[in-house]
Amino acid sequence: MLRLLEERNFPVSTLRLFASARSAGKTAGFKGQKLVIEEARPGVFANVDVAFFAAGGAVTRALAPDAVKAGCLVIDKSSAMRMDPDVPLVIPEINPEALRTHKGIIANPNCSTAVALMGLWPLHRRFGLKRFIAASYQSVSGAGAEGVRELEAQVLAHAKGAPLERKVFRHQIAFNVIPQVDSFGADGYTGEESKIMLESRKIMGLPHLPVSATCVRVPVVRAHSVAINAEFERPVSVAEAREAIAAFPGSQLVDEPSQGQYPTPLDFSRVVKCGVGRIRIDTALPNGLAFWVSGDNLWKGAALNAVQVAELMIKEGLLRPKAALAAV
Amino acid sequence: MLRLLEERNFPVSTLRLFASARSAGKTAGFKGQKLVIEEARPGVFANVDVAFFAAGGAVTRALAPDAVKAGCLVIDKSSAMRMDPDVPLVIPEINPEALRTHKGIIANPNCSTAVALMGLWPLHRRFGLKRFIAASYQSVSGAGAEGVRELEAQVLAHAKGAPLERKVFRHQIAFNVIPQVDSFGADGYTGEESKIMLESRKIMGLPHLPVSATCVRVPVVRAHSVAINAEFERPVSVAEAREAIAAFPGSQLVDEPSQGQYPTPLDFSRVVKCGVGRIRIDTALPNGLAFWVSGDNLWKGAALNAVQVAELMIKEGLLRPKAALAAV
Repeated sequence: MLRLLEERNFPVSTLRLFASARSAGKTAGFKGQKLVIEEARPGVFANVDVAFFAAGGAVTRALAPDAVKAGCLVIDKSSAMRMDPDVPLVIPEINPEALRTHKGIIANPNCSTAVALMGLWPLHRRFGLKRFIAASYQSVSGAGAEGVRELEAQVLAHAKGAPLERKVFRHQIAFNVIPQVDSFGADGYTGEESKIMLESRKIMGLPHLPVSATCVRVPVVRAHSVAINAEFERPVSVAEAREAIAAFPGSQLVDEPSQGQYPTPLDFSRVVKCGVGRIRIDTALPNGLAFWVSGDNLWKGAALNAVQVAELMIKEGLLRPKAALAAV
Repeated sequence: MLRLLEERNFPVSTLRLFASARSAGKTAGFKGQKLVIEEARPGVFANVDVAFFAAGGAVTRALAPDAVKAGCLVIDKSSAMRMDPDVPLVIPEINPEALRTHKGIIANPNCSTAVALMGLWPLHRRFGLKRFIAASYQSVSGAGAEGVRELEAQVLAHAKGAPLERKVFRHQIAFNVIPQVDSFGADGYTGEESKIMLESRKIMGLPHLPVSATCVRVPVVRAHSVAINAEFERPVSVAEAREAIAAFPGSQLVDEPSQGQYPTPLDFSRVVKCGVGRIRIDTALPNGLAFWVSGDNLWKGAALNAVQVAELMIKEGLLRPKAALAAV
């Protein structure tokens, strides 16, 4: 998050960092300066223009209303408010108009949803989306730094011939795939799978869109991939689909299969756009297209999208140009 | 293959091993004996009852007709003859009746197809399959021993901080996923993806079944997994689907998601049955079910199915009980 603000030269007047009492007093670097982390608690958001919340649903629920009362815009990366009808859920390339309806909080979408929509939205605009099916290949960084450490530790243990320990994931993740991301609902779908359905509908403005997702954790450090089969209202062609993807600001077309060129998570780590490839006529669905998307879950799936939201709000005159920022 | 023949106590009178001239003279163990590998060439199949071919399409095309002429039954694991209308393509739990139509050669299905059908077939029998979509998570052993070595070498290089080399896979496979298994056809589907469509149709006797597959290599050593979304003719229920899976001899129901119980490739390596779980109502397709299958690509996806074919032929009186075997 901080690196993105710095790299993108986001216009900042002041930046304050907040975390739990446990982290307060530690420091973090920003543009060559050392910033001291403060404790996040009610009252700290006076004189802050925009606060990026990235601390999970409980912290958002506890502190975001206080920030809003203080006149601070909250851009929230947790899932706490995403489906609240009063909270716009925004991907700037897709539904920027929703930003104008905010009441103090703007939600950032789920990571695999954001990645999938970078392929789906331009195709929807061209052909009219009727339904889609998604199978994800999600990196361990989606489970936080502990997830990354667990994969790395298991791989190093394997290299030494030592037993592989697990704590974060229910099953061994090195040399395995786990068809569970998030916990299970009564309908047999995981939270992650339901988010893909519900958030896709809200962001694209298609409230009844039939969606079914299977979310799978894979031993990849960074970037999520999604295999998508989509049915459209109108006849499709691969050439037109490629054109639509290439013209869309959020996606990069990587689709020369005979040259071995298609997106992989390694190639789309720390990349702004999401890669879309393997575009072909779907042989199971009428007016269907099958394709593949890889994108950085920590960037477009989280911090980058939040920064892009703030950038667009400045451009649209919804936020003052040199804002006082807080990161929670 | 040899271990399975041994473990399953397959009735053998004699066993001969054949390979290329390069391997001739080497030895392999079977039931405590050392067998000397002979060169595979025309003429060697006289007095052999059944030959298991596992040496790729070129060897099958070169030698299988000669074996058939010598009166030897060929059970072929390559893809060379699978779609030949004169060659039955058999999974014993699904289409055993096709065995009786053979003209000397019986083909063994593609590995991911075999795994997927262990879930699809019992559900088809119950509800009537109308179409399906599959996304695979395929282990590196599907690319042979070199594939396994490449993943292992890349992981060890990573542990040592050394550069990761690649030869077998077009992209790094450690900490990555690659949406390519086999080479690409003109329609944008890979050979592996087309096999899932064509072989599923042939084995299940549904020549016009709409199928679309996306096949992806993942850094798993052994066992393939497939996420499947299937539409049926008749109304479905999860309870009935679970019942059908549990009753089917080829599959094992592992479906207690709240307990973290679902199949993973690690749990279904060196296991006879394929694991089926994550069964839920498909929220995108009418009369749809979404589910997940993991199964051993080297066993049910290859050697085990071939041995099961021979076992069933003995049981049905189509092969003499104590056969003279050859493995090529």
